[in-house]
Amino acid sequence: MEEKINKFREMIKEKKIIDSMLALLQWDLETQAPKGGYKLISEMIGELSLKSYNLTTSKEFLEMLKELKKNEEKLDDIIKREIELLEEEVEKIKVIPSEEYKMYSELTAKAQGIWEIARENNDFESFAPILEQIFNFNRKFIEYRGIKEDVYSEILNDYEKGMNVKKLDNFFAELKKEIVPLLKEVNKNKRDFQKKVKFEVSEYNQKLFSKEILEYIGFDLERGVLSESAHPFTLTVNKDDVRLTTRYLKDFPFSSVFSTIHEGGHGIYEQGVDEILKDTILSDGASMGIHESQSRFYENIIGRSKEFWFGILEKSKFKYSELSKLTLEEIYKGINEVSPSLIRVEADELTYSLHIMIRYEIEKGILSREYLVKDLPRVWNEKMYEYLGVVPSTDSEGVLQDVHWSCGLIGYFPSYALGNVYSLQILNAMKKDINIEGTLERGELKRIKEWLREKIHRYGKLKTPKEIMVSVTGEELNPEYYIEYLKEKYKNIYN
Amino acid sequence: MEEKINKFREMIKEKKIIDSMLALLQWDLETQAPKGGYKLISEMIGELSLKSYNLTTSKEFLEMLKELKKNEEKLDDIIKREIELLEEEVEKIKVIPSEEYKMYSELTAKAQGIWEIARENNDFESFAPILEQIFNFNRKFIEYRGIKEDVYSEILNDYEKGMNVKKLDNFFAELKKEIVPLLKEVNKNKRDFQKKVKFEVSEYNQKLFSKEILEYIGFDLERGVLSESAHPFTLTVNKDDVRLTTRYLKDFPFSSVFSTIHEGGHGIYEQGVDEILKDTILSDGASMGIHESQSRFYENIIGRSKEFWFGILEKSKFKYSELSKLTLEEIYKGINEVSPSLIRVEADELTYSLHIMIRYEIEKGILSREYLVKDLPRVWNEKMYEYLGVVPSTDSEGVLQDVHWSCGLIGYFPSYALGNVYSLQILNAMKKDINIEGTLERGELKRIKEWLREKIHRYGKLKTPKEIMVSVTGEELNPEYYIEYLKEKYKNIYN
Repeated sequence: MEEKINKFREMIKEKKIIDSMLALLQWDLETQAPKGGYKLISEMIGELSLKSYNLTTSKEFLEMLKELKKNEEKLDDIIKREIELLEEEVEKIKVIPSEEYKMYSELTAKAQGIWEIARENNDFESFAPILEQIFNFNRKFIEYRGIKEDVYSEILNDYEKGMNVKKLDNFFAELKKEIVPLLKEVNKNKRDFQKKVKFEVSEYNQKLFSKEILEYIGFDLERGVLSESAHPFTLTVNKDDVRLTTRYLKDFPFSSVFSTIHEGGHGIYEQGVDEILKDTILSDGASMGIHESQSRFYENIIGRSKEFWFGILEKSKFKYSELSKLTLEEIYKGINEVSPSLIRVEADELTYSLHIMIRYEIEKGILSREYLVKDLPRVWNEKMYEYLGVVPSTDSEGVLQDVHWSCGLIGYFPSYALGNVYSLQILNAMKKDINIEGTLERGELKRIKEWLREKIHRYGKLKTPKEIMVSVTGEELNPEYYIEYLKEKYKNIYN
Repeated sequence: MEEKINKFREMIKEKKIIDSMLALLQWDLETQAPKGGYKLISEMIGELSLKSYNLTTSKEFLEMLKELKKNEEKLDDIIKREIELLEEEVEKIKVIPSEEYKMYSELTAKAQGIWEIARENNDFESFAPILEQIFNFNRKFIEYRGIKEDVYSEILNDYEKGMNVKKLDNFFAELKKEIVPLLKEVNKNKRDFQKKVKFEVSEYNQKLFSKEILEYIGFDLERGVLSESAHPFTLTVNKDDVRLTTRYLKDFPFSSVFSTIHEGGHGIYEQGVDEILKDTILSDGASMGIHESQSRFYENIIGRSKEFWFGILEKSKFKYSELSKLTLEEIYKGINEVSPSLIRVEADELTYSLHIMIRYEIEKGILSREYLVKDLPRVWNEKMYEYLGVVPSTDSEGVLQDVHWSCGLIGYFPSYALGNVYSLQILNAMKKDINIEGTLERGELKRIKEWLREKIHRYGKLKTPKEIMVSVTGEELNPEYYIEYLKEKYKNIYN
């Protein structure tokens, strides 16, 4: 048995090295590679993906899994869970012809460069054919599993086990029912709070402040880096090498601050996985919904609170001089102004979920063939007008704004909304152990990080998202806390 | 035959993908990876190096080479040259046990992180054991070839075919004979010209200027990038993805300017290789000496000339405001001050070769067991005092200053001196076709690039260094022009 387990660990190590290499190529592509390099790097990604595919679908690998399962009672929880997840993964990919698997990996690698240029040039047409291919591949891969109807539910389930269109429809309907009237209420008292927190700061100084904030919230820069990209993201090479990006807007320094805190939340999660899981396939977030619960927790519940800014103004060595001219109240309202706007990553908490709904409905519509890719700019703008009352003047500010589709992340967006909901459930549990306001005011963010690590981060994928939510909060997904939080917060701000 | 050639191209493609991947990992390690990532990335480099080793020493590969050679008359010049170089390469590595090959790759990958930290902390001792291993591996790898005596000559020959200790001893003796008296002469008239070109410029502005200069000299930023690292270097993923680094000293902007131009020279060479060689193993510089001839040509002959600065002051959209307060003469003398100093990469042209001599003598001494690694700080300082009359106060400014040894580049340094000599031979030939002064004054650097491309760059490794020198200049290595140039230049400055 020991021999079999050693064999298993060896193969997993090989798999992890390939995956880490893929991660590094991805990182390079999005942060440094010149345009001339896109082609070769995409090819490399294709090659490596094929290697990873071949490894996990090989006869040797599948037999090894079978052998181990025969003696399941002798295995510890970690390896049992690894086998369970590997079986799920293999089940999904082995039905895909290897050439298509490779083609798709190359396609999504290449697509990012094309998306970036399309976004720069406000040229949806140059991106549309590749986007269509990406959607088609996604539909086809699900169909290979024998699923012909309600393909999108199956995709959703890949990101968040147990999720499907019906559940999400209900969930969004609930949010809509509560948030849209609240938004109307707030809009009646609309004020330009944000003006005061829009000032010019050099990119260099924004960079320094971003790094300080990362350390302040507990991200370890010895085991991670902060870089820049067109669209902020987090990428894990391994738990000792967690990479974040942000982007700097010269005349609105808070944009990078909140991107940085958001990605920092993802990064703290990844860095916090237990050392014992490091060389296993469990050293990763439990699900994308749980992952986003951490990033949104840091970004909104912590980052957009008054107490956080009180703490950082007291403690920061480096802060924008313009900040000291403002009262805490002005900062707080400035960073929490509700204003239906075009860009999701800069949306306030109240309109944020509506941005997600738009993407959710579009993905659903394309996969069910209700919409065609070429119609997306129009559909996008119509939905923006319907839910948010604003219409982008360019596709760069509209349908081209997100990196996700070019990466092949169809079905990912709902994770952000689930993350919001989870984060408030988690806050409610945390409150029983920690005086959050005081902790933030004293700048003791390490305490919060430790609590999250203890309850969530350290487990990685050892627990399912549902197990985590039930063990931490005592219940499954429940939007109640989130809605209550929004109501209270915004009634106070817009009283 | 066609089938055999296709098979060959396929295997070369695989080799090139592995090598490009290695290059990207190296790049990542030196520009972005956090300390926590060094371990895993070094392991990946080890794995990939082993793959590359296994490929080129495999029975299949060797038989393919043999097969092709049987029908040599049917092969074109490109593939013939590829086979010739591959045979040389295989000859050298197949005698090394694969495990040692992998260990050495991992070692040099890991060593760079250790060197960087040692340099930061001025802690030679923490680097010494690893440096000793690197020297030992180098000695051993040569011994595996059956060579027990004069190991260093063999190593030198790997970097510059035909080179050996005897030739280099003569060469350096000649340089020493001419340069040391010249240096004494100059030192009698010593003046502080440099003061005027030392002023403070923000890193951000230095970055902008560096990029402008790169475009000005003809480096294509669509097919390359400029980043930062502890020690400037150039790394090629392929000819459409050529990567340079520089470093910024806040109070001495010319430091980054000349690093950038130097690496730009390497980069222009790599970008200029003929498209037809792109997927061959010839898409690379002819030798390290020829490579350095291009970087030193751009850095010194172009970059430190009066005419270049006249041109750039006229044409630059972005320049340091401090520059416009200086006369052209003040700038010229400022960037050409002769002053025996500690750091090679910042040395003037006259003392530069002496820095190389020190490293050359040390490498020779260690490989012949005349010196021990632990004695290096002392030996270094003694030689600095002997040749340059200055002694570093810390090892960071002394024996720890260069990245080369940690990368395993033993025997590389002489390439810089050869490059200097070559560059003046090339200038002499270029003068017959181009009015260099006028071209620089008018900022028409593309003309110079095109000349170099036509005569040198496009051939990549298709020609040997000797063939290139003879075809371009009509003769082999000849230090005469270099020495004449230095004499004339510095007599004019220090008249």
